[in-house]
Amino acid sequence: MAVYTDVSDEDLERFLSQFPVGTLVSFKGIAEGVENSNYLIATDDRNYILTLYERRVAENDLPFFLGLIDHLAAKGLSCPTPVRTHSGEVLSRLAGRPAALVTFLDGIWVRRPKAEHCHALGRAMAELHLAGADFAMTRPNALGVDGWRPLFETFADDADQVRPALGGQIEAELSTLEEAWPRDLASGVIHADLFPDNVFFKSGELSGLIDFYFACNDAFAYDLAVSVNAWCFETDLSFNVTKARAMFDGYQSVRQLTDAERQAMPTLARGAALRFLLTRAHDWIHTPKDALVKPHDPIPFLRRLWTHREMTSAADYGLAAAP
Amino acid sequence: MAVYTDVSDEDLERFLSQFPVGTLVSFKGIAEGVENSNYLIATDDRNYILTLYERRVAENDLPFFLGLIDHLAAKGLSCPTPVRTHSGEVLSRLAGRPAALVTFLDGIWVRRPKAEHCHALGRAMAELHLAGADFAMTRPNALGVDGWRPLFETFADDADQVRPALGGQIEAELSTLEEAWPRDLASGVIHADLFPDNVFFKSGELSGLIDFYFACNDAFAYDLAVSVNAWCFETDLSFNVTKARAMFDGYQSVRQLTDAERQAMPTLARGAALRFLLTRAHDWIHTPKDALVKPHDPIPFLRRLWTHREMTSAADYGLAAAP
Repeated sequence: MAVYTDVSDEDLERFLSQFPVGTLVSFKGIAEGVENSNYLIATDDRNYILTLYERRVAENDLPFFLGLIDHLAAKGLSCPTPVRTHSGEVLSRLAGRPAALVTFLDGIWVRRPKAEHCHALGRAMAELHLAGADFAMTRPNALGVDGWRPLFETFADDADQVRPALGGQIEAELSTLEEAWPRDLASGVIHADLFPDNVFFKSGELSGLIDFYFACNDAFAYDLAVSVNAWCFETDLSFNVTKARAMFDGYQSVRQLTDAERQAMPTLARGAALRFLLTRAHDWIHTPKDALVKPHDPIPFLRRLWTHREMTSAADYGLAAAP
Repeated sequence: MAVYTDVSDEDLERFLSQFPVGTLVSFKGIAEGVENSNYLIATDDRNYILTLYERRVAENDLPFFLGLIDHLAAKGLSCPTPVRTHSGEVLSRLAGRPAALVTFLDGIWVRRPKAEHCHALGRAMAELHLAGADFAMTRPNALGVDGWRPLFETFADDADQVRPALGGQIEAELSTLEEAWPRDLASGVIHADLFPDNVFFKSGELSGLIDFYFACNDAFAYDLAVSVNAWCFETDLSFNVTKARAMFDGYQSVRQLTDAERQAMPTLARGAALRFLLTRAHDWIHTPKDALVKPHDPIPFLRRLWTHREMTSAADYGLAAAP
C-alpha cells in the first residue's frame, strides 16, 4: 500500500491541463503497488490512474515501460494505455517526480485463484508474448540469472539473519543454476511479474494485465515459471499441479511451447523462486524497521524453491510432451 | 493511509449479494482514512465506498454514525448515504469486521484551502447543524472537555518524551480550560472533525462532507473552533484571520451566532487545539514504532494553542459583533 508523494491542488491542476481529459471529479490515493505512488483520477469523461515514479524505478527505463503498454494496447491487448499530453508526450513530471497518466482498467484481482483463472492467465500471457514480438525497444532483465549473484552480494553477509544457514543455501543454488540455466530458449518481451494482483478479472473473465514495471526481454518460458510460483502454490505452500496444468494449457492454446522450453521448466521455476527469494531477502534486510511499507517475508520462496528441487521433469508440472 | 483488513473474493461476493447494487467492476483499497479500512467499489451502475470498521471505532457507536448520515442525506445534505441490504440493514459484517457500504461522493479535498473554501465550509457546517436538529439519536462527545483529563492520564507519565515540559503545560491548560469552558452554548449534532480532508470540492464548489466518525452532540460553535484550527493556520503555523473571517461569514449566512457563542470563540479554539494535541500526543507515545500508519506530530497543535492563548476576543478571530 503506497502513496509516498503528496500532490498539491495547484500542481495537480497544472499537470492535468496538459492532457485532453475531462473535468476532475475525484482524486484518491490507492493502497496498492509498493514501488510507486498511485492515484485514481476520475474525470467527467472516464477514470485514469496517475502514477508518480518513486526512486526504485529507474527513470531511463520509463520510456520502455510506457512505450510497451502503448504498443500492446494498440495490438488489442487489454492493459492500461498511456494518455498523451497535447504535445504528444507519455511521460511528464508532477511534484518533482516522473509521472504518467494511464487509462483505468476495470476488474478486480483474484485473491484465491482457481484453475480456470490460471488457464485464462496462461492464455493472456501467450497473447502478450505474441503482441510484444514487434515492439522495437529492448530492456535486459536486470533480475535475470546474471543479476542474481550481484544482488545476493549486497546482503550476503546478513543473509543468515533472515534464517540460519540461508546464505549458504543461496550460494549453492546460485552455483547450480548459473551452470544449468538454459540460455537459448525462445525469447522476447515478457511481463516478469505476473502475480495475481497484476491480473484483473471481471465477471469471471480476464479483463486485463497491469503493472509492467518489471517487463524486459527474456525467455518466454521464464514468464510462465514466475507465474507457476505465484499462482500454483496453496496458502500452505503445497504445489497444485492442476493449476499449473491449466496455466500451461491456456498458454499453449495460443502459443505452443517447444520441447526445450518444456524440459527447462523445472530449472526455470527453481530460478524464478530464487529471484523472488533474493529480492525479498534483500528488502527484508535493507528496509528500515519504521518504513511505510512492510517487506514481504522471503521464506515462502525458499520453500517453493525446495519444492522445485524435487521436481525433475516437465511432467511433474503437468506439462505433457508435445502431441 | 490504510487498508488493514484483506478481503477474499468469496467474502466480497457474499457481502455484495446482500445489497441491491450492480455487477462488481473494480475493487481497490484507498490510501486515506487512518481509523478504518476503506475500499472503492465500482459496479456497472455506480461507485461506492466500502468501510471495514477497525478496533478504534466502538461498534455500538456505528448505528449513530450510519443513522446520522442517512438522516442528513435525506435532509438534502451532500454526504455519503448508507446503502441498505435487501433486508433493510445499513450495518453488516465482512472479514470478521463490522462493515458498511455507502455511496461514493464526487470531489477532491483541497490541500491548501483558500478563503473562499473556508467560506463554503462555514456555510456547509451551519447547514449540517440545522439538518441534524431533528435527528433522534444522541452521542456524547467522548473527546469533549470532560474526556480530556482521562485521556491525558493515559500518557501523562510519558508526555515529556514528546517534548520537554509538555506534561506540565498540558496540565496547566486542562485546569484553565475546565474552569473557563462555556457549558451552556447552543448545541446539537456536530461533525467535530471537519479538517480539509473531510470536505470535498468539485469545480470550485463544495460537493460534500465525509467521515462522520467523530460526530456527536456538543456546542455548535465548538465545530467552528475545530475548523479554525484545521483551516486557518498556514503551513508555517501563522494564523490567517482572513480565512477565519470567511469561515464565520459563511456560517452566519445560514445560522447567526449568538453573542455568547462569539465571546466563547477564543476559549473554544484553545480547547479544540488541546483536544488534537492530546489525541496526537497519545498516539505519538502509544503507536508501535513499526506500525503501518505513522502518528501525526502533536507539536503543531501545541503551537496553535499558544496562538489562541494570545487571542482575547472574538474580534481577534475576525468575528465581528452582531450587526
